[in-house]
Amino acid sequence: MQNYYDKVQKVQYEGPQSKNPLAFRHYNPDEIVLGKKMSEHLRFAICYWHTFCWNGTDMFGTGSFQYPWQASSDPLTNAKAKADVAFEFFQKMNVPFYAFHDVDVAPEGKNIKEYLHNSAVLADIMLEKQTATGIKPLWGTANCFTNPRYMGGAATNPDPEIFAYAAAQVVNAMNVTHKLGGENYVLWGGREGYESLLNTDLKKEREQLGRFMSMVVENKHKIGYKGTLLIEPKPQEPTKHQYDYDVATIYGFLKQFGLEKEIKVNIEANHATLAGHSFQHEVAMAFSLGIFGSLDANRGDPQLGWDTDQFPNSVEENTLIMYEILKNGGFTTGGLNFDSKVRRQSTDKYSIFYGHIGGMDTMALSLKCAAKIMSDDQLKANTDKRYAGWNTQFGKDMLAGKMTLADIAKHVESNDLRPQPVSGDQERLENLVNHYIFD
Amino acid sequence: MQNYYDKVQKVQYEGPQSKNPLAFRHYNPDEIVLGKKMSEHLRFAICYWHTFCWNGTDMFGTGSFQYPWQASSDPLTNAKAKADVAFEFFQKMNVPFYAFHDVDVAPEGKNIKEYLHNSAVLADIMLEKQTATGIKPLWGTANCFTNPRYMGGAATNPDPEIFAYAAAQVVNAMNVTHKLGGENYVLWGGREGYESLLNTDLKKEREQLGRFMSMVVENKHKIGYKGTLLIEPKPQEPTKHQYDYDVATIYGFLKQFGLEKEIKVNIEANHATLAGHSFQHEVAMAFSLGIFGSLDANRGDPQLGWDTDQFPNSVEENTLIMYEILKNGGFTTGGLNFDSKVRRQSTDKYSIFYGHIGGMDTMALSLKCAAKIMSDDQLKANTDKRYAGWNTQFGKDMLAGKMTLADIAKHVESNDLRPQPVSGDQERLENLVNHYIFD
Amino acid sequence: MQNYYDKVQKVQYEGPQSKNPLAFRHYNPDEIVLGKKMSEHLRFAICYWHTFCWNGTDMFGTGSFQYPWQASSDPLTNAKAKADVAFEFFQKMNVPFYAFHDVDVAPEGKNIKEYLHNSAVLADIMLEKQTATGIKPLWGTANCFTNPRYMGGAATNPDPEIFAYAAAQVVNAMNVTHKLGGENYVLWGGREGYESLLNTDLKKEREQLGRFMSMVVENKHKIGYKGTLLIEPKPQEPTKHQYDYDVATIYGFLKQFGLEKEIKVNIEANHATLAGHSFQHEVAMAFSLGIFGSLDANRGDPQLGWDTDQFPNSVEENTLIMYEILKNGGFTTGGLNFDSKVRRQSTDKYSIFYGHIGGMDTMALSLKCAAKIMSDDQLKANTDKRYAGWNTQFGKDMLAGKMTLADIAKHVESNDLRPQPVSGDQERLENLVNHYIFD
Amino acid sequence: MQNYYDKVQKVQYEGPQSKNPLAFRHYNPDEIVLGKKMSEHLRFAICYWHTFCWNGTDMFGTGSFQYPWQASSDPLTNAKAKADVAFEFFQKMNVPFYAFHDVDVAPEGKNIKEYLHNSAVLADIMLEKQTATGIKPLWGTANCFTNPRYMGGAATNPDPEIFAYAAAQVVNAMNVTHKLGGENYVLWGGREGYESLLNTDLKKEREQLGRFMSMVVENKHKIGYKGTLLIEPKPQEPTKHQYDYDVATIYGFLKQFGLEKEIKVNIEANHATLAGHSFQHEVAMAFSLGIFGSLDANRGDPQLGWDTDQFPNSVEENTLIMYEILKNGGFTTGGLNFDSKVRRQSTDKYSIFYGHIGGMDTMALSLKCAAKIMSDDQLKANTDKRYAGWNTQFGKDMLAGKMTLADIAKHVESNDLRPQPVSGDQERLENLVNHYIFD
Repeated sequence: MQNYYDKVQKVQYEGPQSKNPLAFRHYNPDEIVLGKKMSEHLRFAICYWHTFCWNGTDMFGTGSFQYPWQASSDPLTNAKAKADVAFEFFQKMNVPFYAFHDVDVAPEGKNIKEYLHNSAVLADIMLEKQTATGIKPLWGTANCFTNPRYMGGAATNPDPEIFAYAAAQVVNAMNVTHKLGGENYVLWGGREGYESLLNTDLKKEREQLGRFMSMVVENKHKIGYKGTLLIEPKPQEPTKHQYDYDVATIYGFLKQFGLEKEIKVNIEANHATLAGHSFQHEVAMAFSLGIFGSLDANRGDPQLGWDTDQFPNSVEENTLIMYEILKNGGFTTGGLNFDSKVRRQSTDKYSIFYGHIGGMDTMALSLKCAAKIMSDDQLKANTDKRYAGWNTQFGKDMLAGKMTLADIAKHVESNDLRPQPVSGDQERLENLVNHYIFD
Repeated sequence: MQNYYDKVQKVQYEGPQSKNPLAFRHYNPDEIVLGKKMSEHLRFAICYWHTFCWNGTDMFGTGSFQYPWQASSDPLTNAKAKADVAFEFFQKMNVPFYAFHDVDVAPEGKNIKEYLHNSAVLADIMLEKQTATGIKPLWGTANCFTNPRYMGGAATNPDPEIFAYAAAQVVNAMNVTHKLGGENYVLWGGREGYESLLNTDLKKEREQLGRFMSMVVENKHKIGYKGTLLIEPKPQEPTKHQYDYDVATIYGFLKQFGLEKEIKVNIEANHATLAGHSFQHEVAMAFSLGIFGSLDANRGDPQLGWDTDQFPNSVEENTLIMYEILKNGGFTTGGLNFDSKVRRQSTDKYSIFYGHIGGMDTMALSLKCAAKIMSDDQLKANTDKRYAGWNTQFGKDMLAGKMTLADIAKHVESNDLRPQPVSGDQERLENLVNHYIFD
Repeated sequence: MQNYYDKVQKVQYEGPQSKNPLAFRHYNPDEIVLGKKMSEHLRFAICYWHTFCWNGTDMFGTGSFQYPWQASSDPLTNAKAKADVAFEFFQKMNVPFYAFHDVDVAPEGKNIKEYLHNSAVLADIMLEKQTATGIKPLWGTANCFTNPRYMGGAATNPDPEIFAYAAAQVVNAMNVTHKLGGENYVLWGGREGYESLLNTDLKKEREQLGRFMSMVVENKHKIGYKGTLLIEPKPQEPTKHQYDYDVATIYGFLKQFGLEKEIKVNIEANHATLAGHSFQHEVAMAFSLGIFGSLDANRGDPQLGWDTDQFPNSVEENTLIMYEILKNGGFTTGGLNFDSKVRRQSTDKYSIFYGHIGGMDTMALSLKCAAKIMSDDQLKANTDKRYAGWNTQFGKDMLAGKMTLADIAKHVESNDLRPQPVSGDQERLENLVNHYIFD
Repeated sequence: MQNYYDKVQKVQYEGPQSKNPLAFRHYNPDEIVLGKKMSEHLRFAICYWHTFCWNGTDMFGTGSFQYPWQASSDPLTNAKAKADVAFEFFQKMNVPFYAFHDVDVAPEGKNIKEYLHNSAVLADIMLEKQTATGIKPLWGTANCFTNPRYMGGAATNPDPEIFAYAAAQVVNAMNVTHKLGGENYVLWGGREGYESLLNTDLKKEREQLGRFMSMVVENKHKIGYKGTLLIEPKPQEPTKHQYDYDVATIYGFLKQFGLEKEIKVNIEANHATLAGHSFQHEVAMAFSLGIFGSLDANRGDPQLGWDTDQFPNSVEENTLIMYEILKNGGFTTGGLNFDSKVRRQSTDKYSIFYGHIGGMDTMALSLKCAAKIMSDDQLKANTDKRYAGWNTQFGKDMLAGKMTLADIAKHVESNDLRPQPVSGDQERLENLVNHYIFD
């Protein structure tokens, strides 16, 4: 086996007291939580792009990382070296899954033929490594946003040939994901949006997107792919406005084109906060609408207005996320993908270990705290009690449509109803949650 | 006639060169723009609440205005005095419409009987004044958010009796709006949301809201009301999260409950920006989804995170709004309601004149600039050209569903398509818009 | 003793496993942490205004709380009843301090004479209660923002008589704070700012403020008051822009008027975040500038753009705050004042207990976590190592002014310096902090 | 002469009615406004970096522009070709100034010797072109942020050798700016800040920065440079927090190190809004503190949280900016530099013409509107009247320090002062400003 990260054999669980920065303190894959292994609850994935493709650039600085697999002048040589180091890292981190864009793994090439060729070569290499390690994609996707061709959108481009080119990429990426046994296929519309309404036909572009997604669904069934299709919401960046703004917006889009049974969402923490929501809000909203799929675990910076994609490190925040997941029965095909990158200044070769270990421990500890909430469910009991009035005949009749608005009004008048509001009790409940986390 | 504002008879159009701060410089009601009177294009309404009910409090200060109609200890006496001054002002401002909440106009009373009684008394008074002046409601609505009863929601309250109380208010407010000939009926869910997910059943509350709205639609038809039903989006404030977040979210909600043909939206500029959108975005989105209804014309402060409800004064911003309106055929039952208030420091009695005059002139001038864009439509020509590729057979076939994703992919490969992106030309188009505004 | 909150005698420490929502789990006043009692580290204060004066209004709703001490038509009767319940609560919460505005405690009256009279009456009552209980002010202040008189500013008002009126209030509030043994005197410039630059002379207003503060300093010395003077930064709300925007801005102001040795800052978490900073940033900045004074412990809502003043409940955030405090030697005259209020929906009479218990436990646990960081100071060691280069002769010479810029440039050239950047190691350090908090 | 932009000879003033997108409608260089030529009022500069160095990348996309001067494998060849096209463009745009970073103009090289050599070669070339055209730098600066060396700061780096390297660059860039006759020298601390407080010694870094700036001042005098030194505020991006946050923060920094007479500020519109301020606020604040220097004219997007650097196109916003400039006597060494870039999608070769023409026309029209405000100064009269009370003896005495706080309090009591607030009149003043802009 490749041994680029020679200081680490495999990251081990050593328990909370360990001082070893290259060990897990909370993530213990085989430990049983609420009747299921931690690894099955959490379904961790590592992303290819931030971890192996990004070289540390930002809008004001050039690359700060020196990766050997970016050193060759032959893209295929680099791609193979990158696959080696990626699988070394996946194994050493002991994760069951990874996530990738077509062009993260295989060089884009100069035209469609080169693209397809490179993709096929690398797919075989990946498959071989998967077979050897048992690690496979949580999801695959097509990058239809980096190439300048897509600067004005992919499915929503004013040029139908660019729409077509995106279709070609998606067909291929779906095939590769299918071949590699990916559990889900994701669509992130990074350029599906606008920079200016002055040159944009909003309605037309939305319809193009609806058609595109309908064809993606059709294609999935045609090729016999059994994974879940996921759209990833993001409100802006790179474009000024993206059509897949947030979970509620995507729900409306899916309903418009009759796709709400076919497509779910992949929710990212940092995208949630850029959209003006808490991460928990987006997760709870997706479950309430029946379109929850998977998560991109990361965090933004509360003071910054762009996607910082930092590793999650808040147990306080993620306990509530894991509580939503547990309450709703856990992941099915989804999981926790670290769409996270180390800081540009983290040039220590082992920083990606620290980042992922911190993230995995955070989610593992959050799982354990959430399990405590589930086990001793005062929260649920409180909510049940709060809404209990709706179980009375009056409540049921109103919701069941047995009374008109006028009937209800009459009822209020005849009975001179003077309902008194009841305490929301938020502070007590917040203390309770802290009790589950800290005590 | 009442003459509280004795310095003004009626605000007159005096043209751009006038130095009179109590005259219009741009709003000339009978002037014809694109074949229609300005007054018919703009359909101005003045709101009752900010203009006559608010006394200048903010979260850190007590009332700074001393209104004679708030001086009596008898609420009905105050309500009548308020109606007098309101209609005096509507007339002097020369607007065809006003907008009101039930409890702006009639005292809320201690219970449902008092509420209904007061409402009936005032409805007769309002009707009389309407008959005398020809001024009528652009819309009416029920205030289901100020009374502490509604602190945890109205239709989304955990207590079905509070849901019922809200129903009683809405039935009455719809009746009054119908009686007064209101063109629309609005629902703003100021408390339909949550403060904390810890005590909230998101799915249940959303379903309660769905049922409530369905009954409102039913009730409209039952009472023979012909006006339009409108939901007003707002993302937060007073609650942490409001279900009617923005236009796209409401669209999803309407589709979920099959109400998208029955309910439209009343979009407010300041609510748009609080939701992270431009005002133009929300208007364009509503048109593209077929749910555009009416507008609350105001502005927020770009540096402040709450609803400042300032009078609109940007011709640059509102020209684009009026362009969207004109492009889509103009208002039907909707109009421009000034959901705007003078600053707490604007204690000069005539400040509400300055505020409304400024707002009306801003919108009138914006209309004229937008008409120039329409007349010389380089913008439209540019967009048509930009999307022209979709009129080719290839474009049409893809959109019409005549090709599968795989067919398209094959087409790209066989033809070795290498589409080149085309300039978005944003700077040139922005200069063009400024040309219409300033030259 | 008064027994309004009859369900509670005194909130006791019961340890982490306690299920009693009316007990402390972490705040154990006499427990020794790093050689000092917890109570001496934390110096908790409860605020008068949110806890006993606010009745649950917000900008869209009327009061939801029914307090007996707001029921009488005689303001002095109410004020006395309020003092009774306040001291009952302070004792039951077992805090050493409280904080107050002049008009929280004593009715404002109709003119300066009534104001002074009421203030004197209540000061005697407060003193008596203090003597009986040993509880005293962490700080006092004058409310120069609620009365409409101050709508255009207090010290920065265009009207010198309003400036004078504010001076009269401040003289009195300083006297009362002095008499009651307050540890600090605070100045919050809620209206010292502007709504519009169109009517504002920024330079003049800033100079008025400078003069005012200079007189406050002078007055302090004249009356022999030994407490610390503190300015409280806030960027906006209620006004569009407040002159005391943030810590760095106040530092510039103090330097401009030569007051940087006389006045320090009282930093509030929610004001920090409204200013676009983290709470930790503001605390660290104040220490680095030598003007750290005291803290208002609370939290905002990351999705909301106004001051929500929620109780602090994040141990993750506050561990870093307590670390800054410990690292810099702890509080002197300052302390932790809960400028926090229960939610408007928290109408349960005991909600203020839950709020404060949660806040105190959060800060106590944060103190313990911060003490762990101090004891095992890898963080400090890491920082020392990171900057170690500055201890070389070259580093020292440059900082000591022994080299000119040109000398340094020459040195770079002659030695062909090619310095390589070193890893910032952020992920590893973040994991370390979580280790101190969670393990 | 070079003729890359062969469609344009020189952009000419053709007046408001012109339909030519490559002509000025408002910028008429020799037109006299308030006794001075427009070109002397506005002092336009074009920036080298966005216009000739940026190739259209963003964080999610590769370069969309194909510039011939980026095509050679020899950096010096490219640099010379770039200088040719830059001067062609400056001339065709008819601007008197440009602005540049050292490495925009000359290749950075692999070490300090190469850097200095390249810089010298290009400085001669630039000087020659300047002599031929009469165009010179509004300002020069050193880029101490793009190279990974500076990832942890330049002057605030933990490594003194990196501090030294920055010093070497600044010495050279100051020499070049001096040689080329630059009117100002700018320092933008893009990396002078932190990503995490966990690895940062705030106080130490601030002192390093203080020392660095003191040496820069010293160096300026030593080399006999007569231009103005300017710091450019920016709150964040690329780093999480930048020390030069905003104007008020920089003022405090300058006062701390005694530099407030030596260094002024270069204010950028988009940086102002990222800091939570209006552009006008920052300009007014700088004038009120006596540190106004120069402007970077651009705009951000109100919905986006990063520096979009769009061309200014709001006459409404910039009229108020030009009013502040005129009111304070106009620019001295400063001017209007377009720190603006065309959108990534604006791949039309002439987009940079459209962008600059739009920006220049916007500022020219804003100047004319501001001149109207100056000529008919109701605004000033209003402000004078508003503060007139401070010209009374009582007002003067208080400000002059002739009364103590206690004296003033006594005065209020003895005279039973009951000052009434006066209307802020904001709406009337806003209408007035629109009158100057639109009528």
